[in-house]
Amino acid sequence: MNIQQLITQNHLELLFQQGTFGIEKESQRIDEKGKIVITPHPKVFGNRSYHPYIQTDFAESQLELITPPQQSVKDAYRWLSAIHEVVLRSLPENEYISPFSMPLALPPESEIKVAQLDNAEDVAYREHLVESYGKYKQMISGIHYNFQLADDLIEKLFQLQKTYQDPIAFRNDLYLKLGRNFLRYQWLLVYLFAASPSVENAFFRKGQQIPQQFVRSLRSSHYGYVNHAEIKVSYENLQQYVETLEHWVNSGKLIAEKEFYSNIRFRGAKKQVRELLEKGIRYLEFRLFDLNPFAQYGIELEDAEFIHYFVLLMLWLEKTADQGDVEKGREMLAEVALEHPLSITAYQQEGLALFDQFEQMLAQLNAPESVKQTVQQKRQQLLSPEMTLCGRLVQSMQQPTDYHQLGLTLAKQNKAAATARYYALTAFDNMELSTQALMFDLIQQGIKTEILDENDQFLCLQVGDHIEYVKNGNMTSKDSYISPLIMENKVVTKKVLAKAGFNVPQSLEFRNVEDAVRAYPLFEHRAMVIKPKSTNFGLGITIFKQGVENREDFRQAVEIAFREDKEVMIEDYLVGTEYRFFVLGDDTLAVLLREPANVIGDGQHTVAELVAAKNEHPLRGDGSRTPLKKIALGDIEKLQLKEQGLTVDSVPEKGKKVQLRANSNISTGGDSIDMTDLMHPSYKALAVGITKAMGAAVCGVDLIVPDYTKPAEPKLSSWGVIEANFNPMMMMHIFPYQGTSRRVTKNVIKMLFPELF
Amino acid sequence: MNIQQLITQNHLELLFQQGTFGIEKESQRIDEKGKIVITPHPKVFGNRSYHPYIQTDFAESQLELITPPQQSVKDAYRWLSAIHEVVLRSLPENEYISPFSMPLALPPESEIKVAQLDNAEDVAYREHLVESYGKYKQMISGIHYNFQLADDLIEKLFQLQKTYQDPIAFRNDLYLKLGRNFLRYQWLLVYLFAASPSVENAFFRKGQQIPQQFVRSLRSSHYGYVNHAEIKVSYENLQQYVETLEHWVNSGKLIAEKEFYSNIRFRGAKKQVRELLEKGIRYLEFRLFDLNPFAQYGIELEDAEFIHYFVLLMLWLEKTADQGDVEKGREMLAEVALEHPLSITAYQQEGLALFDQFEQMLAQLNAPESVKQTVQQKRQQLLSPEMTLCGRLVQSMQQPTDYHQLGLTLAKQNKAAATARYYALTAFDNMELSTQALMFDLIQQGIKTEILDENDQFLCLQVGDHIEYVKNGNMTSKDSYISPLIMENKVVTKKVLAKAGFNVPQSLEFRNVEDAVRAYPLFEHRAMVIKPKSTNFGLGITIFKQGVENREDFRQAVEIAFREDKEVMIEDYLVGTEYRFFVLGDDTLAVLLREPANVIGDGQHTVAELVAAKNEHPLRGDGSRTPLKKIALGDIEKLQLKEQGLTVDSVPEKGKKVQLRANSNISTGGDSIDMTDLMHPSYKALAVGITKAMGAAVCGVDLIVPDYTKPAEPKLSSWGVIEANFNPMMMMHIFPYQGTSRRVTKNVIKMLFPELF
Repeated sequence: MNIQQLITQNHLELLFQQGTFGIEKESQRIDEKGKIVITPHPKVFGNRSYHPYIQTDFAESQLELITPPQQSVKDAYRWLSAIHEVVLRSLPENEYISPFSMPLALPPESEIKVAQLDNAEDVAYREHLVESYGKYKQMISGIHYNFQLADDLIEKLFQLQKTYQDPIAFRNDLYLKLGRNFLRYQWLLVYLFAASPSVENAFFRKGQQIPQQFVRSLRSSHYGYVNHAEIKVSYENLQQYVETLEHWVNSGKLIAEKEFYSNIRFRGAKKQVRELLEKGIRYLEFRLFDLNPFAQYGIELEDAEFIHYFVLLMLWLEKTADQGDVEKGREMLAEVALEHPLSITAYQQEGLALFDQFEQMLAQLNAPESVKQTVQQKRQQLLSPEMTLCGRLVQSMQQPTDYHQLGLTLAKQNKAAATARYYALTAFDNMELSTQALMFDLIQQGIKTEILDENDQFLCLQVGDHIEYVKNGNMTSKDSYISPLIMENKVVTKKVLAKAGFNVPQSLEFRNVEDAVRAYPLFEHRAMVIKPKSTNFGLGITIFKQGVENREDFRQAVEIAFREDKEVMIEDYLVGTEYRFFVLGDDTLAVLLREPANVIGDGQHTVAELVAAKNEHPLRGDGSRTPLKKIALGDIEKLQLKEQGLTVDSVPEKGKKVQLRANSNISTGGDSIDMTDLMHPSYKALAVGITKAMGAAVCGVDLIVPDYTKPAEPKLSSWGVIEANFNPMMMMHIFPYQGTSRRVTKNVIKMLFPELF
Repeated sequence: MNIQQLITQNHLELLFQQGTFGIEKESQRIDEKGKIVITPHPKVFGNRSYHPYIQTDFAESQLELITPPQQSVKDAYRWLSAIHEVVLRSLPENEYISPFSMPLALPPESEIKVAQLDNAEDVAYREHLVESYGKYKQMISGIHYNFQLADDLIEKLFQLQKTYQDPIAFRNDLYLKLGRNFLRYQWLLVYLFAASPSVENAFFRKGQQIPQQFVRSLRSSHYGYVNHAEIKVSYENLQQYVETLEHWVNSGKLIAEKEFYSNIRFRGAKKQVRELLEKGIRYLEFRLFDLNPFAQYGIELEDAEFIHYFVLLMLWLEKTADQGDVEKGREMLAEVALEHPLSITAYQQEGLALFDQFEQMLAQLNAPESVKQTVQQKRQQLLSPEMTLCGRLVQSMQQPTDYHQLGLTLAKQNKAAATARYYALTAFDNMELSTQALMFDLIQQGIKTEILDENDQFLCLQVGDHIEYVKNGNMTSKDSYISPLIMENKVVTKKVLAKAGFNVPQSLEFRNVEDAVRAYPLFEHRAMVIKPKSTNFGLGITIFKQGVENREDFRQAVEIAFREDKEVMIEDYLVGTEYRFFVLGDDTLAVLLREPANVIGDGQHTVAELVAAKNEHPLRGDGSRTPLKKIALGDIEKLQLKEQGLTVDSVPEKGKKVQLRANSNISTGGDSIDMTDLMHPSYKALAVGITKAMGAAVCGVDLIVPDYTKPAEPKLSSWGVIEANFNPMMMMHIFPYQGTSRRVTKNVIKMLFPELF
């Protein structure tokens, strides 16, 4: 079978480039001095017995961050970014993530705790590793890269070839070829991506020879995480692979199959290798990557893309490595690992030849230009070792001990970068902030999350067999369908609430001016609002706060409203302040006051200066990607100033509040002020009742309350309900301008998965 | 207190004309010969212990149809129409509703059963009436008209006056004034609306003097339903009213308060009159109206409007009748009732004077023109008795016995009219047919129904304390909100269904032609559909049923699709026929096949003639108000004919099916064919599973099934799911072109109110 021919002749180039990708990244939690911490794994990350994203590896301090399998390298990388942001923002203030594979600074060996897992077997395994290798060696971290070919590709190739009858045997041999070639040429990846040139001397065992110079990869060398030399496993075929591996376990040389530290692992549906014989290899795990200390998340996206195509090349090559080649590859790897990072590698010529084939493959596959460019750059690194990752790393250190300071600086930079926009998940910043906040909590809590539709904010959550779907952060199966239908229709909402006994402003609708004017007697002396039925930005609205006393005034207001819409509503005007109540189930979780854009004078600065200063607030931005909006100084704001006898150059006296807008929308620079603890509980109870009357689980209820300190009374002058929203913005409550943040997304999770709490 | 001044000086004219209205109409079920039937009240009308719309009055044969209270006379009238259509379509084939107040033909007295009610007290009361009055007198029917002034009006008037301190006393006196004046002038309504000139002789008791000529109203005369002359009740004030009425009951002259047959009743929240003293009068019931035999539902809308303004006049009049006037009014009524219908009434002058005041009131109120015109016409009837209702009635009869034949003719006409468009409720024909069908079933079953928003198809249903809201006939609280959100998004739907293990055609989406063409290798040799993401009327769709074999063909199809949308989907093509499965809960209730518009040749008629004949089908119409659409013969149909080598003038051979459309939409003349009993049950089970996977209670699932007789297999060639609809049209299943009707609206009711079944 010539795989190149099968692919090119059958136009399978695109399918060949598809696949499923996952990244697992280990790293140590360190303190502000770079020392590995001895604190427990943070409780905020929930339960490690099922957490899909945030685990511990060997030690309690050793984070293992795991992306869910994704259909592109880029998506896996986005998850890696998101998980990092969650972890870095959740760590105690004085804890960081080490950017290096090798430990930065070691605590006394006795203080290192193995990971405190629920499963006794897992703990016993770790205790065994301590026995065999010592604790310090277990402190090494790296990146594992998981890859699965597209099922469709394997199926098509199987149909096109004639050698195999059994599709599983065919699939196994595809992956075995890839694996053997990988083991043969893995040295090149170490040459390019190695980044563990040095470590503090305490790391080395007594009597061990300490390297006298920088090397490319301590981690991939015999100083790192490798089995005893006698442990040899056959890659000739799957049967032999399983049998030789089981042999070492049965003989007691390995305590478990997973103690076999190959740079490639064949993965099936279950953990035991024997299962592979029945169901076959499903995907491959590549384990040889050092952490890239310059990359915010331990690996750069373009390198992850490069690795994908390198792996494809291992399948694409005409030749298939045999067991001898595999052994040779291991030896070459050990050699390259200990080369000086700035030296030309011993295998430069083989590397260049491999790059020739690499570039041919990319041309034949019509691979993306970006990948072709990356491959050219990496080829160049074979000629210029100072451009390799490790080359750059050692150039930034004057002496081996600078390693420590560099690591600490990078760790602090990374934490600061991940925390800057703390209200967002950078990788998912095209989604709504409320959904980003929910995803943050889901990742932190360890709830399996799948994005079904990013533009539509549609998530699938899973805990065990329990699946829940969520749209826009709080639209779930807990709401009944009729609730949003009721709330969508303002007339129906009012009827339903009135029927349930809540205070609702009365209103009438009209389709023409004459009918409305004819109805004038119904409204005379009454405080009321005349507005287009579908109100937009407050256009066409007239408020008679003192009651209308004159038919002509009334007619004029009606005519203004009809300029904006075909239907006009005339509604009782409620005196008081509008508050947003966020209700979930039986509780009002948050109460928010929205104030129109404003600044407070200090007797020294101009309005323009005060606005500029207020706009510096970290929550304020220009677009839709920040919780608050910067205050503009446009025509509307200037007009508003003019009504107060001010311009942008006026200097308002100290303590004077200057209004820049009449409307209180956050989207026009308004302030959001949390009032949850101040609001009298009677109004919170009303909001819950209103939510229940409409059959909703989650609801944003807008109440007019003249005096929030007094208990609610059953009359419209005490309170009235204006509107109910089935998709309330949670973001406002989580990131208020003033007052306490209310993390309502956590309550959504509790509502959906009560079994976790 | 001068009410006219209060109203005009305070601009309360409009409020004065508002109110709440209800109509109750009694009538006898009769057989095809006009005789009152002795069959039981039809079971299909559910339980009379709570039925709000369809009750029985005295006799088992005597229907009492009750509209819910409405905010306009017109709406009350619409309900009267709808209830009639439900009743007439539900009666056995040989039963009708008598159009006359007086019985058409009487069965032997012994065969008449009093209404078989659950409540023993109600039955005992009826047995007492038999004792007191005989069964025949109880056979008389009429219309009761309920009216309540606007609460706002009463409140404003109370605030404006100075005489009363207690708002309830004020309200009572308003209604008492209205009531006394009404009793004083009620003779005029009998003059105008009376319609019981005659009855068969068997009606009269032995020894009773039989009227020798037509009279205006036997029903309102002493031959009708009146108390013994000694029973006099005081209307001076509420206290006296209650006490005198209780006196007659306590003395045993009346078995119950309700045996007091006044033409006006004061109504409170409860049935006992004593309660009025505490809570006051809430509304009035006027009981003197004969059935109008010429009106389809016993009363004309314009007469109902006239009565409303007549009632207002009774309050408007400066003078308030005293007890003497009330007695005088009763005597005048008795006299007018027995006048010959074609004679000038003895009280013409008083009538004309009253009309003067009536017209002045209308002018001052600025009442609608239509009402002013009606009042003018009625005034004319005082001068021309032959124009009164009873005048017209007796003119259409040569002799008293023609009464029988006329009644029978009218009864049959009314039934035919109410049955013609059996798929609609005429009065609610602006709503969707599915909602009309549901309302039909709700009225029939006796579930209290309130229309919250007609344009939005929003209903509120109530049984006891149990309230349910329904939108579009089947969107309810039983669906979870996430279900429609899943179904709205085709990409998410596919992911959810695929996750749950259902056969879903794979698809990819593209945002530009080049990306799609680059992906060509993924699709080569594959049967597929290329389509704009939001498909409209099939524009831009290319189907490669045999698989695409050529990149250029593929590119062309992609370009065509991109002309229609910014996003294009390429989806596996499923071979087979599309069926709609209507699922509710655990059951597939209906399966429908939709066939493109077609005719079958007979070897004699042209295509145009065949189309015309097919279009005669009662379910086919032009607009959206019929279950099926007439087949057009426009350009698209002619092109379709041309492709078959035909024109509209071709004469297709016998049995040949001629296609007039490529698409199967009902809205372009397609046929709907019920397949529920033919479809293999395995597919029905799949549709239920698909519905459950999305958390829906009601769902329309579109499956492609190549062979509906064979059991489903777990592969895409056996079946595939194309789409799921959260708002499936029920109407298609209830009114199919061919096959059995599936009354799925009844299942919706069962789902919402299981306690009733």
